[in-house]
Amino acid sequence: MAAEIAEQPVVFRRLLSSYKSQFLDVRALIEERKPRMVLLAARGTSDHAALYAKYLVEVQWGVPAGLVSPSTYTIYGSRPDLGDVLFITFSQSGVSPDLLEATEVARAGGALTVAVTNDILSPLARAAEAHVEMLAGREKAIAATKTYTAELLAAYLLLAPEPGDLRMLPELAHQAVRSAEILYDAVRITRVARSIVTVARGYSYATAREAALKLMETSYLPAQAFSGADLLHGPIAMLDRQVAVIAIRSPGAVGRALDPVITAARDHGARVWTIGAKADLGVASGELPDAIRPILEIIPLQQLARLTAVSRGLDPDHPRGLTKVTKTF
Amino acid sequence: MAAEIAEQPVVFRRLLSSYKSQFLDVRALIEERKPRMVLLAARGTSDHAALYAKYLVEVQWGVPAGLVSPSTYTIYGSRPDLGDVLFITFSQSGVSPDLLEATEVARAGGALTVAVTNDILSPLARAAEAHVEMLAGREKAIAATKTYTAELLAAYLLLAPEPGDLRMLPELAHQAVRSAEILYDAVRITRVARSIVTVARGYSYATAREAALKLMETSYLPAQAFSGADLLHGPIAMLDRQVAVIAIRSPGAVGRALDPVITAARDHGARVWTIGAKADLGVASGELPDAIRPILEIIPLQQLARLTAVSRGLDPDHPRGLTKVTKTF
Repeated sequence: MAAEIAEQPVVFRRLLSSYKSQFLDVRALIEERKPRMVLLAARGTSDHAALYAKYLVEVQWGVPAGLVSPSTYTIYGSRPDLGDVLFITFSQSGVSPDLLEATEVARAGGALTVAVTNDILSPLARAAEAHVEMLAGREKAIAATKTYTAELLAAYLLLAPEPGDLRMLPELAHQAVRSAEILYDAVRITRVARSIVTVARGYSYATAREAALKLMETSYLPAQAFSGADLLHGPIAMLDRQVAVIAIRSPGAVGRALDPVITAARDHGARVWTIGAKADLGVASGELPDAIRPILEIIPLQQLARLTAVSRGLDPDHPRGLTKVTKTF
Repeated sequence: MAAEIAEQPVVFRRLLSSYKSQFLDVRALIEERKPRMVLLAARGTSDHAALYAKYLVEVQWGVPAGLVSPSTYTIYGSRPDLGDVLFITFSQSGVSPDLLEATEVARAGGALTVAVTNDILSPLARAAEAHVEMLAGREKAIAATKTYTAELLAAYLLLAPEPGDLRMLPELAHQAVRSAEILYDAVRITRVARSIVTVARGYSYATAREAALKLMETSYLPAQAFSGADLLHGPIAMLDRQVAVIAIRSPGAVGRALDPVITAARDHGARVWTIGAKADLGVASGELPDAIRPILEIIPLQQLARLTAVSRGLDPDHPRGLTKVTKTF
């Protein structure tokens, strides 16, 4: 897991270099079809990349986007009319039968289907009309890290109207990988916590979700992610001194919207650790577009999950009862 | 909370009686506009009614549906083109500023906006083009119960292509309210659990989400809801003897899809309690359409949340740090 976290700058460089060869064609195809709506389907870690893509489309295209519940196709047998729809799946392995079936149904229903996978020969890659490869190299650790950020970057390169200059990204990622010292205070509270709450808003909500999943997978702690507003609508009641809160507070309006949530969590006695501001992240991410932030800010949180597991005497490389490829229906 | 749980059969009767006066007009309006997509916006408990409505639309209309992230409108300032879109908000109070702004943006963007609230004079009810009232009467308990099931029934009456004969519903709800004795085994495991996982698929996923929220609000336990497939993609690793699993297992294909998940949870040592089959629910819900099930199956789980709180020495009527109306932006 540590090795694959450290590999992320290299993966980013590889993916950025493939912009012309991989992304331009698919972007042209999307532009030609002018989708009026975007649907996204994924499971587990990849579902958080889908969530990121949903915000990207809603904010930057001004087009509605939704996360698909695959069971409506696979179990309830719905066969929707999806003309004008762009249907994107994210899957590291590209083999889960539910995503394969959902893609086939979407394609038959008239959608433009695009698969983002780490295996160009996978059934999912072949089932979709267009395919983008993550180019993350083989991922051995069960807790996905480099494939997650590769999915985010692929989503950005596919969907951002103007991707901008991302040459700084690998170097900033490299700094984030080495940011272990800023995590000292965070591990101090997660190590002894009975449960963990991660909280964010906007683009960073995907980061909160993914950080919670990493903590569950490697430290077996109940870790729950909330958008700031949803935490206030009820779950805040469960916060007390035994709960560690990881707040991902971006700069600007989205970050300010999180401040009342952070205050409320502290009022409940929870121990709050905040990441996202320049100093905390250890990266000068102001040099990149705002929407790129989740690609960097998850990196210290991947380290946090790993270090929390180690500090609790667990082996993050061998989560109990998990296998690398999960097939669901 | 106990009194309001018990009021649900009466609320159902009142809402069913309002079908002609409240729902027929709005249904005609929706039919006239022929939406090609449905967007749903809500917070907290109401968000689970929105999730239920999403499945209803996807399964029964064959039209794509998505849950809106209000921050894309309120914080990022997105102003999407929503012609051909049906935009539904669910809110007990009808006062949360984010939902109000989202409705205004959606209406300005060309969507047909419908608000489902418990207050016909609320700002949200007035901002939407059409309005449906929950008719649940004033809800005093902070943990919403009767307004949740009223929202589900309102969603069903608004969106089901053929609502069918629901005359049995209030009586079946009455039986579910009195089903406390079947909860003995469930309380035995939740009372001592360190955390709780609720799991379901399809329509019942909304039940899993709402049950987890009730447990968090009243018992302060970390309670997490998963769709069965997502639980297998990672979070299953955290299950052990200290985790109580509440599985909502409907009959039929959706229930069968949950069986491997229940087996995996048991293999991890978790204590699993299953609800949903006829005997467990204590109601002969086979007499009603499948999609009605979530309206009944949450009732024993509301009781479970209440009894778990009491058994842990807590007062479910006064969750710490919550107020009845939460305003978020």
